[in-house]
Amino acid sequence: MESPDKNNCSRLQRLFVEADLASGKAFPADKDQANYLLNVLRLKAGANVAVFNGRHGEWLAQVEIAGKRSCALCVVRQIREQTGPGDIWYLFAPLKQARLDYMVQKAVEMGVSALVPVFTQHTQANRLNDQRMQSNAIEAVEQCGGLNLPEIREAQKLEAVLERWPAERQLVFCDETAAGDDPLHRLKELAGKPMAVLIGPEGGFSSAERERLNRLPFVTPIGLGPRILRADTAAVAALAIVQAVAGDWQNGR
Amino acid sequence: MESPDKNNCSRLQRLFVEADLASGKAFPADKDQANYLLNVLRLKAGANVAVFNGRHGEWLAQVEIAGKRSCALCVVRQIREQTGPGDIWYLFAPLKQARLDYMVQKAVEMGVSALVPVFTQHTQANRLNDQRMQSNAIEAVEQCGGLNLPEIREAQKLEAVLERWPAERQLVFCDETAAGDDPLHRLKELAGKPMAVLIGPEGGFSSAERERLNRLPFVTPIGLGPRILRADTAAVAALAIVQAVAGDWQNGR
Repeated sequence: MESPDKNNCSRLQRLFVEADLASGKAFPADKDQANYLLNVLRLKAGANVAVFNGRHGEWLAQVEIAGKRSCALCVVRQIREQTGPGDIWYLFAPLKQARLDYMVQKAVEMGVSALVPVFTQHTQANRLNDQRMQSNAIEAVEQCGGLNLPEIREAQKLEAVLERWPAERQLVFCDETAAGDDPLHRLKELAGKPMAVLIGPEGGFSSAERERLNRLPFVTPIGLGPRILRADTAAVAALAIVQAVAGDWQNGR
Repeated sequence: MESPDKNNCSRLQRLFVEADLASGKAFPADKDQANYLLNVLRLKAGANVAVFNGRHGEWLAQVEIAGKRSCALCVVRQIREQTGPGDIWYLFAPLKQARLDYMVQKAVEMGVSALVPVFTQHTQANRLNDQRMQSNAIEAVEQCGGLNLPEIREAQKLEAVLERWPAERQLVFCDETAAGDDPLHRLKELAGKPMAVLIGPEGGFSSAERERLNRLPFVTPIGLGPRILRADTAAVAALAIVQAVAGDWQNGR
C-alpha cells in the first residue's frame, strides 16, 4: 500500500534523528545514516531528505557533504506538524528472531506507542536483542511515515508486568478460547481509555495465565475468530481492530 | 496464539487430502505426506493424524505403514463437522516471492475463500508460481485449523477482473487516500453480502485505477489509518476488520 503520492514529500528518504529540529539548524548525520545516504543512496550535496525526531514533526533537510563517510543535515522547513503518539502498549511474548523482527516492524506500522516484551509460561525465546528491536522499529517508522518511535521496554515476566499495572489502562487480552464473542462490541466500551494489547506466544497461554488474566479488573478478553492465528498474524489483526474501534484509524491523516 | 488445548485433537498433525472421508475408508497418503509422516515426524504404524478435505469435515485417521516411503491413512471417526467457507475473495497484487509466501499464508489464516492475484499498474512482480501458492495455502490451512482450502485463481489484470465482476459481490477497496473515513462504519453496511477485499502493490494504486474503482457501484473504499502499511500488513489488517464486522469472527468456533 505504499504510495508515491502518499504525502507531498513521500519520495524523500525519511530519517529518524535525535537532534532538535528547527529551520536553519544543522547537525551531523550519524555514521550509519551518513554511510546509507552517501554510499548506498549515493546522494549528492544539496539532496533533500525528510527528518523527524518524535518531538518536532517532520522537516525537509538538505545533505551537506563533509567527507566520503560523513555528512551534515541542514534543516530547511517543516513538512508535517508533530502528532502525539497513540496510546496503545503492545505486550508480546518474544518469538524466534525472524518472526520477532517481523512482529516489531508490524507493531510499529500499526501505531503502537510502546513495545513491551513479556515472558509467559509457554514463551520459547528467552533472550532479546534490544538493539535489534530498536533498529527494526526505526526502520519501520521511517518506512511507514509515522512520526513517533515507540518506546521499547525491557523484557519482564508477564506476572511482574501485571503486578505493576496502571489501574486506568485497559488491557485487551487476545485469548483464542474467547473466539465466540464479538470483539468489536467489547472494544467499543474501551474507546477513549489508555489501552494495551496482549498477544501470547506460539504455544498459547497456560490455563493458569488465562484464569489470572480474566480475574483482573482492567482486562478485556477478546477472540480473534475461529482459526488459530500465528502470533505475528494475531498482532496485526488485534491492533487493526483496536485502532479501527478505539484508535487513530478514525482520525485520518 | 497456537494453543495445545485449542481443540481436543489439535496435538495431531493435520493433513489436507483429496480423498473422500468416512469411517472405515482407507487411502494411500501422497508421496510428500508419506515422507513427512514416516521420515520427518517418524510416526509408527497406528499413529493418529487428523485429515480433512474441505468437503467432509475433519477426521481422526491412523497411519498404516506400507513401506519405507509409503503409507495409507485409515479413517476412524469424525472430529469436526464441515463448516462452509466464508465468502471473502482476496484480491492482491503479486509481491516478490518471500512476501508473497507470507501473504498467502496470512490470507488463509484470515479465512479467505479465494485468492485472486491481480496485476495493477504499479505491480512489480510479473510471474506467479501457482504451485508454490497452493503449497503455502495448504500448509497454512493445516496449521491454522481451518477446514476449507481457498480456491487459487489464475492471475489476471485488475481491469479484466473488474469487467467480469459479479454485481452482487461487494469489493472493499483498501485505499490509503481514504484514511480519513471510519472503515467500520462503511463495512457494517456490507454485512451479509458476498465480499472481496482488494489490496494494492507496494507501489500503491495509480490515480487512474483509484478513479476507475471509485466509480464502480460495487466498490467500497476504506482507509487503513494514518500510516503507510506494507501490502502484507494491510492484508491482515483489512481482513481482520472485515471478518470482525461482517465475517466469521462473530460466530465463534
